[in-house]
Amino acid sequence: MPATSPAAALDIAELHGSLTDPLLDAMNFLNEAVGRFPEALSFGAGRPTEGAFEPEQLAQHLQSYINHLEQQPGWDRDRIRTLLYQYGRTNGVIHDLIARTLENDEGIVVPPESVVVTTGCQEAMLVVLRALFARPEDTLLVSSPCYVGVTGAARLLDIAVRPVPEGASGPDTEAVLAAVRAVRAEGGRPRALYLVPDFANPSGASMTVQARERLLQLAEQEDLLVLEDNPYGFFVRTGSPRPTLKSMDRNRRVLYFGSFAKTALPGARVGYVVADQEVVGPQGERTLLADELSKIKSMTTVNTSAISQAVIGGMLVESGCRLREANAEATAYYRANMDTLLDELERHFPPARRAELGLHWNRPDGGFFLVVTVPFAADGKALERSARDHGVLWTAMSDFCFDGGGRNQLRLSCSALTHDQIVEGIGRLARFIEEEAAVAGG
Amino acid sequence: MPATSPAAALDIAELHGSLTDPLLDAMNFLNEAVGRFPEALSFGAGRPTEGAFEPEQLAQHLQSYINHLEQQPGWDRDRIRTLLYQYGRTNGVIHDLIARTLENDEGIVVPPESVVVTTGCQEAMLVVLRALFARPEDTLLVSSPCYVGVTGAARLLDIAVRPVPEGASGPDTEAVLAAVRAVRAEGGRPRALYLVPDFANPSGASMTVQARERLLQLAEQEDLLVLEDNPYGFFVRTGSPRPTLKSMDRNRRVLYFGSFAKTALPGARVGYVVADQEVVGPQGERTLLADELSKIKSMTTVNTSAISQAVIGGMLVESGCRLREANAEATAYYRANMDTLLDELERHFPPARRAELGLHWNRPDGGFFLVVTVPFAADGKALERSARDHGVLWTAMSDFCFDGGGRNQLRLSCSALTHDQIVEGIGRLARFIEEEAAVAGG
Repeated sequence: MPATSPAAALDIAELHGSLTDPLLDAMNFLNEAVGRFPEALSFGAGRPTEGAFEPEQLAQHLQSYINHLEQQPGWDRDRIRTLLYQYGRTNGVIHDLIARTLENDEGIVVPPESVVVTTGCQEAMLVVLRALFARPEDTLLVSSPCYVGVTGAARLLDIAVRPVPEGASGPDTEAVLAAVRAVRAEGGRPRALYLVPDFANPSGASMTVQARERLLQLAEQEDLLVLEDNPYGFFVRTGSPRPTLKSMDRNRRVLYFGSFAKTALPGARVGYVVADQEVVGPQGERTLLADELSKIKSMTTVNTSAISQAVIGGMLVESGCRLREANAEATAYYRANMDTLLDELERHFPPARRAELGLHWNRPDGGFFLVVTVPFAADGKALERSARDHGVLWTAMSDFCFDGGGRNQLRLSCSALTHDQIVEGIGRLARFIEEEAAVAGG
Repeated sequence: MPATSPAAALDIAELHGSLTDPLLDAMNFLNEAVGRFPEALSFGAGRPTEGAFEPEQLAQHLQSYINHLEQQPGWDRDRIRTLLYQYGRTNGVIHDLIARTLENDEGIVVPPESVVVTTGCQEAMLVVLRALFARPEDTLLVSSPCYVGVTGAARLLDIAVRPVPEGASGPDTEAVLAAVRAVRAEGGRPRALYLVPDFANPSGASMTVQARERLLQLAEQEDLLVLEDNPYGFFVRTGSPRPTLKSMDRNRRVLYFGSFAKTALPGARVGYVVADQEVVGPQGERTLLADELSKIKSMTTVNTSAISQAVIGGMLVESGCRLREANAEATAYYRANMDTLLDELERHFPPARRAELGLHWNRPDGGFFLVVTVPFAADGKALERSARDHGVLWTAMSDFCFDGGGRNQLRLSCSALTHDQIVEGIGRLARFIEEEAAVAGG
């Protein structure tokens, strides 16, 4: 053998199938595409506004958390030092503050021990899917179009996924029931349903309170767990906040996913899942699902960064564990942005013009996202032209669809732009849409 | 249906099999058992010393990183603010500092783009295993006894694992070759070998330089990837540091796992993997394995906490990207601790007495761990007696063995105790061993 033989190269066909699944490129695109067209205005990524953030605030948040601990019985300087420095409790150290905040903000009353603090909500999804899905026939239902984080995590674990078409008001109970029956008919076992009841990513749709009640009944009747993801619930544009499924959940059918990425600080990468279900062991002994999840979390990332938790913990303490109130300014900002987005679409495409073009869009009650249906294929090539020729970025809805849907739709996010950027951006988008429509039309 | 029917309970037999695998309890035990016996001296967990850490240093490290960025071309205050606040590059932002540190400390010269910054080394293992293991027959070889983090991650992904018995000098090339052949004979495909060449956890064993060379040759000959994990390499007790496999790797056979948990700050949860292998796509296009790993990482935790990375980045900058030198004091501390541990074992069990008892232990060249072989079953019940009756904790070696091995062995870690605690703790352990031996002997 020569001293230096050619470096081994790996054949991608020999690597895990997820790596050649377009699904897994979507998330990277969302986070990294902006860099490819630095001059383009981006309606692409669902980044939160940076507000008045300054790096110096990080030290202040850390100090708030330290001050908070110092006031707790049993905490002295040595114990605080160890908490920040060392490995720690797998399920986290700010679970009590999160439980208190959930009660204040959402009326969700759960024991702190049922909160698993994770490295962003993404890890919570991975850990929960790993725990709940044991056999090849176990099937995850997802309201479709669907956030790629959960379908991507399922792909990593080779979990079967079944899309459930969303209606105009989001996840539809009848469609869920039909999917449950279809999966069973094919020999599968519907195990859980993932959905975003409020201001869904990507569709912007929200469920009515009645639909939430029906869904919980269905979950009970069909022995289905519900994975409720609520990253955007604070950001109400019209009407009143609706109760979360978890706050209505009398039979512990719901696992509740939360994120601080939109409501506190994305850079901290702190999320959580509430898992207050009981688990029955072989001798009938009972444990909390959260404690079972900790075993899996110990093999994904061990404990979540103590420093990140301390920063988020400090922000929670500073808000009096009332994060909804602390987000009042951000909520007003997103509301005004979505209003501007809708006004500008209306201005460029008044009813007669959009009827001519076959163009339409929804009017979400809140959140970051709306969907525009266009008279041409909104694919990667169209996005390239949009960015290069018109300086505007968006996300193809087909990235969020399993079933070949969304081909004529694009998702617009208004969260990370200023009023003036939205006005300018929708002007650019209008020129792009007119140009594409003209080409498509003949 | 009544308004409130009994809460649904989940049958553990319906959850993923990893949850009933004793393997996954081991890590939680390591991190949490200490709390059960607060008065006991613990030789259990491999925690690093807290040294002179004070919480206020976190703000200082953050500032060091900010100052560093400000000196880089193209970085202004806005960009720094966004880096700390927002979602970021999936593979991390301190990859360049890590690459520079690896060159200074280990003579490992790799492009920064080949470094994937992860949420602790645990996430690096999970992501790498997911990428490399595609088919049921793909088998992970692990040097045994083996760190539970890697076997646990394999368990989450239902990856077949084959233990390779370690020799007195750690992983043994002949045993690896025999395992490769045995796996092939059974229809499996040996895909990669995981090992810790320096001061292994749990055995404390280290490979000779010659054994490293032979192992790299074998990897080339058998088309095997090598997963080299090096959390303890700085902590040399006797002799000189030996070259890492990665620094000797001419054909990119080695993926190198690194951790800042032992050398900087465990609470930050920052680790990394060097993956400079090329991947060949279906049209012959070439990508870097690190970039393929980013697709998977985007579905495990998205990017690693920017705040944690900034703290570690600040520590790297402060050290001039020479972390080995920055660890000189810690290294001296661990050296003295291991010396004390060996001296005290010798004092309580001089040659004649240990021959009588059938007691022996190894003398590691560095690191945190050594192994004591005892004349009784070192199991969970023995540990309970040791903690309750003698106030001393250790780890059962059987927790690290797949094949029923290690039943008469216990692992002692000397990293988180003071000199006086080690002296007192080995006194307690000696009384425990004498008592157990007396009972076992008759």
